[in-house]
Amino acid sequence: MTSIEQAREVIRWCRQLAKLSEDRNATTRRFLSKPMRDVHTALAAWMARSGMTVRVDAMGNIRGVLPRRREDTKDAPPRFYIGSHLDTVPNAGAFDGVLGVVMAVALVEILGEKRFPFAIEVVGFSDEEGVRFGAPFLGSRALAGTFDNVLLDRADQSGRTLRDAIRNFGLEPDRIPDAKAASNALGYLEFHIEQGPVLENLNLPLAVVDVISGQSRAELAFGGSAAHAGTTPMKLRRDALACAAAWITEVEREALTTPGLVATVGRIDVEPGAGNVVPGRAVVSLDVRHPADPTRQAAVERLTRAAEEIATRRGLTMTCEPRLDQPSVSMDASIAAMLERAVEQAGAPAHRMSSGAGHDAMVVGASMPAGMLFLRCEGGVSHHPAENVREDDVAVALEAGLKFLDELALGARG
Amino acid sequence: MTSIEQAREVIRWCRQLAKLSEDRNATTRRFLSKPMRDVHTALAAWMARSGMTVRVDAMGNIRGVLPRRREDTKDAPPRFYIGSHLDTVPNAGAFDGVLGVVMAVALVEILGEKRFPFAIEVVGFSDEEGVRFGAPFLGSRALAGTFDNVLLDRADQSGRTLRDAIRNFGLEPDRIPDAKAASNALGYLEFHIEQGPVLENLNLPLAVVDVISGQSRAELAFGGSAAHAGTTPMKLRRDALACAAAWITEVEREALTTPGLVATVGRIDVEPGAGNVVPGRAVVSLDVRHPADPTRQAAVERLTRAAEEIATRRGLTMTCEPRLDQPSVSMDASIAAMLERAVEQAGAPAHRMSSGAGHDAMVVGASMPAGMLFLRCEGGVSHHPAENVREDDVAVALEAGLKFLDELALGARG
Repeated sequence: MTSIEQAREVIRWCRQLAKLSEDRNATTRRFLSKPMRDVHTALAAWMARSGMTVRVDAMGNIRGVLPRRREDTKDAPPRFYIGSHLDTVPNAGAFDGVLGVVMAVALVEILGEKRFPFAIEVVGFSDEEGVRFGAPFLGSRALAGTFDNVLLDRADQSGRTLRDAIRNFGLEPDRIPDAKAASNALGYLEFHIEQGPVLENLNLPLAVVDVISGQSRAELAFGGSAAHAGTTPMKLRRDALACAAAWITEVEREALTTPGLVATVGRIDVEPGAGNVVPGRAVVSLDVRHPADPTRQAAVERLTRAAEEIATRRGLTMTCEPRLDQPSVSMDASIAAMLERAVEQAGAPAHRMSSGAGHDAMVVGASMPAGMLFLRCEGGVSHHPAENVREDDVAVALEAGLKFLDELALGARG
Repeated sequence: MTSIEQAREVIRWCRQLAKLSEDRNATTRRFLSKPMRDVHTALAAWMARSGMTVRVDAMGNIRGVLPRRREDTKDAPPRFYIGSHLDTVPNAGAFDGVLGVVMAVALVEILGEKRFPFAIEVVGFSDEEGVRFGAPFLGSRALAGTFDNVLLDRADQSGRTLRDAIRNFGLEPDRIPDAKAASNALGYLEFHIEQGPVLENLNLPLAVVDVISGQSRAELAFGGSAAHAGTTPMKLRRDALACAAAWITEVEREALTTPGLVATVGRIDVEPGAGNVVPGRAVVSLDVRHPADPTRQAAVERLTRAAEEIATRRGLTMTCEPRLDQPSVSMDASIAAMLERAVEQAGAPAHRMSSGAGHDAMVVGASMPAGMLFLRCEGGVSHHPAENVREDDVAVALEAGLKFLDELALGARG
């Protein structure tokens, strides 16, 4: 049985690693930054103590392999992956990504001398957030074999290319293909904080993720006429902000009345933006997500049409520029079912939910069966120093992880 | 009779003066800037040619006096003022302010040898827009005797005080009291472009202003919770932009249903302002104007209450910071009535309207009876290089000005 002490140790590890940062007073750790090497050093020592063979692949992912059961003699032993990412957003919390890696190592440590009929490979991805090169999932793309070499020429803010960043870290960009997972991979499991308030609201510690929602992003521009706020009667105005506001309330209404849909206007820019001038132009962002792609696409279509209608009725122009149309990704059904049973055996209700955020499991899932287990996070807060998890939740998640590995071992043996 | 040629000459003057600018490719002429001296030089010559005695007062207002009729022997002849301002906003048009000064000089020129039982003083105010020192109406405050010496210590963006700016222009700040109008002033008349679309919409050339609307300004802040746009279900959000949008539609509704009211949200700032983050804070401006102060104040109260209610219903906080509560200023009733008759005699309908923008007449009106005549402007556009007026409108306005002076002379004689 795992204990609350082991969970406490996981949290202590996360908080220690959060101190390895590019900023003195905040946690910021981008792809192949100097503190990332310090994280590797710390984790590699712990992995080695736990019986793993450690390497850093050409994309900067740290990988520790726990060999399979010795008596098994097959030549190419199957391998099960457990991991998450080690990079962070600027001014991050201590758990987004890191928790999944630390829990994976902790699980292996808890195993002690126990071995399975498959090898376990723990992966700490070098990049999921995409902060440094504006391209997310660099680490998991390398593991999935879906990394596009075109990205090697992309430059960071200082003008250094991804290729040079890899070389500067002492790695060899030409070896990226070697980072690809074994062809007989059994699957991938990722522990991750929920990054949302659902579990806390339901008073549940864990959830099995069944699908990662698809996303649409767009930018809409409403064009009216800037005018004097004192001398232009209401009926002669073509107020771009009033028009945008009418549409924003419609976005909210649409999402509130469509189960599972989230729709967000997070950015608005108004010109000329003076208190005594009727706005002549308003540019807004739209972010729409849903587990089912047709539902999401229909919502985007309705909202675009609504924007057109509201603008036309008010004598304004409207343009909509689609920016992203990313399909949803289903987690592997049999891994999800095994995770459900494992969670129940660990003593928690097996809640299922979709993920509204992208995760490495989405990318890895293209090359092997993948599953995710969400942990409740305090206040639903993430990407913020206030990120927090509960010891008892981590304990039950570790226990579920052990049960999951046991059932996986039964299947692999059978 | 004035002719279209005289109107054309007025427009030509305005366009010439627009070239006297701080910027090579745009019209920008702030208080006591170098091009303001060039404007003075040009206008002084024209004023002198038209029989006026010219001076620049200690606030930098250019003033030309046409003496009263010679046979009249009273010691302190009454004086009638006609003017507007010569400063501009950055990247201005050619008519806001300048038109009123140029028309005043043109009227005197048209008079030829004709004199009245009162002197006529043309005033070109040095500052109405308040761009340089962030304090408007410097020129007319000096004429009205309401200039507050505290402002002399105020600095412009380069750090130069108003006091030094006056000295640097070769004037003497201690003499500002001498800029005050004569105590036996008969009144003040200002020609000005409407700066709005009402006259164009009514297909009318002129309007007599009866009141300058009062203004309220405030800043409202809605405080919610920033949250992940993908992982936060709609019902668990406290979205500051969605809240602000609901209120902005209410501001528009309130103004549309209250006759004569204009209400504007011209500025909105949203934090954190990322497309994939639910806004946690939205700060908006409010500008409310109405000719009747109680109507305006009641509207502001209703809108503040609505903001509170909408925020409370959504679990957000709301704070409202009043920034301005400026009462309306009535134009002199007898001057307005004389202007109406003059406009009709000039052959145009005598439309009455309120001004939603502040004008020098509002400030001068504190010390003498004041009136204003609005000229239609193309598209309602002002504070923009596209500002434009029609020759035939200027012609009828000049004619109305002459008729007005004639009636004023009858009254002064009677």
